[in-house]
Amino acid sequence: VSAVTDLMRAGGLSPAEIRRRIRDGEWQAPTSGLAPGYAQANLVVVPREIAYEFLVFCHRNPKPCPLIDVTDPGSPNPTYAAPGADLRTDLPKYRVYRRGVLEAECADISRYWGPDLVAFLLGCSFTFETAMRHAGLPLRHQDDGQNVSMYVTRIPCRPAGMFSGPMVVSMRPLPIADVSRAVLVTGRYPRAHGAPVHVGDPAEIGIRDLARPEFGDPPRIGPGEVPVFWACGVTPQAVAQAAKVELMITHAPGHMFITDLLDEDLAAG
Amino acid sequence: VSAVTDLMRAGGLSPAEIRRRIRDGEWQAPTSGLAPGYAQANLVVVPREIAYEFLVFCHRNPKPCPLIDVTDPGSPNPTYAAPGADLRTDLPKYRVYRRGVLEAECADISRYWGPDLVAFLLGCSFTFETAMRHAGLPLRHQDDGQNVSMYVTRIPCRPAGMFSGPMVVSMRPLPIADVSRAVLVTGRYPRAHGAPVHVGDPAEIGIRDLARPEFGDPPRIGPGEVPVFWACGVTPQAVAQAAKVELMITHAPGHMFITDLLDEDLAAG
Repeated sequence: VSAVTDLMRAGGLSPAEIRRRIRDGEWQAPTSGLAPGYAQANLVVVPREIAYEFLVFCHRNPKPCPLIDVTDPGSPNPTYAAPGADLRTDLPKYRVYRRGVLEAECADISRYWGPDLVAFLLGCSFTFETAMRHAGLPLRHQDDGQNVSMYVTRIPCRPAGMFSGPMVVSMRPLPIADVSRAVLVTGRYPRAHGAPVHVGDPAEIGIRDLARPEFGDPPRIGPGEVPVFWACGVTPQAVAQAAKVELMITHAPGHMFITDLLDEDLAAG
Repeated sequence: VSAVTDLMRAGGLSPAEIRRRIRDGEWQAPTSGLAPGYAQANLVVVPREIAYEFLVFCHRNPKPCPLIDVTDPGSPNPTYAAPGADLRTDLPKYRVYRRGVLEAECADISRYWGPDLVAFLLGCSFTFETAMRHAGLPLRHQDDGQNVSMYVTRIPCRPAGMFSGPMVVSMRPLPIADVSRAVLVTGRYPRAHGAPVHVGDPAEIGIRDLARPEFGDPPRIGPGEVPVFWACGVTPQAVAQAAKVELMITHAPGHMFITDLLDEDLAAG
């Protein structure tokens, strides 16, 4: 297993090969660092009858909800992001919500699947974090082995039908001299949250205390560093949960779907 | 009227003021050149029951169908693109299709409107043509006072439910030395068709004869110039027409909706 782990981490296995191993239960851990260069995605599955409003919500809020792919109703095959993959089995861990309440965590959602379900794949911060690394920008939470800090803001999402709520953001502290570069580098990837939504004073977007994030670990901010905030993929899940949809299935945190798309495929153009 | 025309052309009137004049019947002509700096948009109105599939189609084909705004069912108010505007009256000319057949051209669609209709606004090539002008790039069809040449290609759109068909492209000839700059300049506007989909040999995308465009005027291509092809907003209309949707309403060619958004709001980020 260790040799496989190293191979997967080093990029020796294709996305399809990694998904096969995940499907066969050979990999059950978070996906960070797997298949370098390939985009990973957030998963949200909802019934067809509310899929239209959810799709409109994603369209109206592209920074927190950068839509990569939508399956045909009943099909678990993301024909654009990874043709032939099976979204019921190809993620290492899922969460199942009924009327907004977490009902189960599992490694296979085949028994929940049905002809009325639609799966949405949304861009993930791994893509722009890879680009930041390549640009020589520091990523404190990674260096510290922590989860990124995430906060519920007072920035309202544009509502769509039953879906509404505040934007959730992730925060990465940066030396002030690096802010401009970070904006340019992440702004190249509008389908992976794009440029920051806010730089500086957390109070301006309704965050009272940086030391108490709603999700993830508290940050460590050094002298001369400024907090930089990006729209976060937790937003659509939080909004769907708050709407108490009859059934919603998502990836478990950190256990993403590995696509066949290059990070570069999520860049603008 | 001539003074008003000059004012509107020169940018002396706000988008809202121009829309008011259009609504009042004071302007019935094409909108090219009005409200410089502001984005104009293609309009497609369809019944709610097929709006989901149309929205998925737009999402799957962002180059020909760059979605700017979707109204709530029954509402003619594009709350993002122009809050308070009325899509039933604020365009100079509309086309009404029943089961794919043109039924009427009119200046007001109030009598066709109902609680089940949804309006889609899609980015328009005026935005990237303005950027090309600002970048000093030539626009042959404008210089010649012609319509841009448009062609049906063999590039398939990604289908969604009832909607499928080939991509329609517009073609602008450019000196070969200008191609790279044109790609960069237009690529900044993914919500206005973005970068070209093809450069060079028309046969490679299934165009047999550049002199016989399916829409618009034949091009004039000079020596040393190369044809450059962009995805075209005619695509979603052609696809919806081919699907013979019960009712579809669009803008009449060239008679666009003038939004409150700056061209720059359609740039990536």
